[in-house]
Amino acid sequence: MRTCTIAAMGSEFELIDQAFRAGAIYHQPGTEVPNGDDASVHACEPGMAWTVSTDTAVCGVHWPPDFPVDQAADRAVCAALSDLAAMGAEPRQVWVAVTAPDAAAIRLMGHGVRHAVQRFGLELAGGDTVRAPLAAVTVTVAGLLPAGAAMRRDAAAPGDDVWLAGRVGFSALGLERWLAGDRDPDQAAAFAQVEPLLATGVAIRELGVRCCIDVSDGLAQDAGQVARASGVAVHLDLETCAGWPELAAMCGEQRAAALALAGGEDYALLFTASAHLREALAGLAHRIGACRAGEGVSASLAGAPVALPAHGYDHFASEAGA
Amino acid sequence: MRTCTIAAMGSEFELIDQAFRAGAIYHQPGTEVPNGDDASVHACEPGMAWTVSTDTAVCGVHWPPDFPVDQAADRAVCAALSDLAAMGAEPRQVWVAVTAPDAAAIRLMGHGVRHAVQRFGLELAGGDTVRAPLAAVTVTVAGLLPAGAAMRRDAAAPGDDVWLAGRVGFSALGLERWLAGDRDPDQAAAFAQVEPLLATGVAIRELGVRCCIDVSDGLAQDAGQVARASGVAVHLDLETCAGWPELAAMCGEQRAAALALAGGEDYALLFTASAHLREALAGLAHRIGACRAGEGVSASLAGAPVALPAHGYDHFASEAGA
Repeated sequence: MRTCTIAAMGSEFELIDQAFRAGAIYHQPGTEVPNGDDASVHACEPGMAWTVSTDTAVCGVHWPPDFPVDQAADRAVCAALSDLAAMGAEPRQVWVAVTAPDAAAIRLMGHGVRHAVQRFGLELAGGDTVRAPLAAVTVTVAGLLPAGAAMRRDAAAPGDDVWLAGRVGFSALGLERWLAGDRDPDQAAAFAQVEPLLATGVAIRELGVRCCIDVSDGLAQDAGQVARASGVAVHLDLETCAGWPELAAMCGEQRAAALALAGGEDYALLFTASAHLREALAGLAHRIGACRAGEGVSASLAGAPVALPAHGYDHFASEAGA
Repeated sequence: MRTCTIAAMGSEFELIDQAFRAGAIYHQPGTEVPNGDDASVHACEPGMAWTVSTDTAVCGVHWPPDFPVDQAADRAVCAALSDLAAMGAEPRQVWVAVTAPDAAAIRLMGHGVRHAVQRFGLELAGGDTVRAPLAAVTVTVAGLLPAGAAMRRDAAAPGDDVWLAGRVGFSALGLERWLAGDRDPDQAAAFAQVEPLLATGVAIRELGVRCCIDVSDGLAQDAGQVARASGVAVHLDLETCAGWPELAAMCGEQRAAALALAGGEDYALLFTASAHLREALAGLAHRIGACRAGEGVSASLAGAPVALPAHGYDHFASEAGA
């Protein structure tokens, strides 16, 4: 009987191979089935826990339409990794689902994903590509940490110090200037280059920190999440944030306060710890406030109260309650 | 000092709560941090392995624009679960990232996701929602199976029987009729309702099957993946597929062959096993072919060879090599 073999498996597979896999497969210890099957398979490590998060970034929402799409994909991976940093995990695997209007955009996004994946020594464990009118990337990340040690939002206590690792406000300012037509890479850098604070996350978890959140929607909203989940009041002294004098000099104190509180996309780590950790934490973050009995968030600047924004960035705000 | 508290956390959180979380959180054993933190955390079970897959479904690509969006989200979850079925895993967690143009669509998609998640007793462990002009859903699923037992694409051997659990061709025919304006739910059902063969996947893995693939791009392409990964030739007898007489009666033998081989979206399981498992497998699937030394895929119908399509569905085919 004559047999008709399939010589080529279709261009989608070749495109995915070229765009995402070339040079980017890092088998982590324990990976039984790597990228390329229906699903990847990873052995469990006794005494450890998996931590997993998913984030979507969309052209025109999370990055300007004229922003380089490879850099957009790179920073989407880094933004997702920031969630693992906030749990205190060591990142292991990434799964990336990409939609884009043409093969050229897929290749560029693959390049950006590979760049991030290689930088952090991660395993690109799977993904999906779809041709669609809108460029978007959904990144799922998985990391490992000791069982029972994850840093959570609901573990702050009255009397805890509030700490911030990383800077806030600069990313929103960089994006603002990009949108205003300023293509100076130095000005845009704080938006364009996301640096997930993975080593800091592990270090503070190992020191005993139990409450931490990724600051991605502005200090006010993310501190509010901690306050609500933990049942405490959180007070922030803005001038004690790292880089505050620089930010205030760039755009004035009032604008700086608004950017720090509600700018978003900072990927800093906000965490709380009891006073006995002050010395140990001093080299890793800035102490910017305190938790008290009560509820909600308050902020001050040089002793004077600062009005808080109603909320941070919210994709569906205009339809609330509709 | 006067403090300004944040009373409401923004409508995005409330919307996500309403759309996705209400009644849909199933804490699986071992979940340390559920939905609602930066990432979910799940304890490892010694001797077990995690298996993870990501799939994206986009309006206008994976479902017709006039198809109900709640049903589209439901079937996207089920399609992702089919990948876990092909590995032989028991599903545990789902993370869902949704983009949609308005809050009403988000609510509908949340309803569809919840429907699927509840049906399979899964934990909705996290996700993301973004307002964007295009409705799309990316589903990441995680399941558990014994370490070393995953069914892979590269484990077929010459002499193995080829088996098919589930039916092929009916989904593509249902979609074809929907696109032609036939809104009869019975006709569209095979496309609209995806039933991941999770119990079958676990059962055949427990019987000792080591090679399996999810049939989502048509029999020819997915059998080709097994052939290529395993280094074998795969021959298929189309008339031995479940439902073949019915499919042929509905649209003629030639069209039925094309739909079975390259229709796609079947979410059947194609697997191989040595002959000693024939009796044990007979109640779970249909024996539809054999593996031989060689390469590629061939098909026959009542003993006569059937020409194979160049490839299955391919989002980027028109730009291949560009």
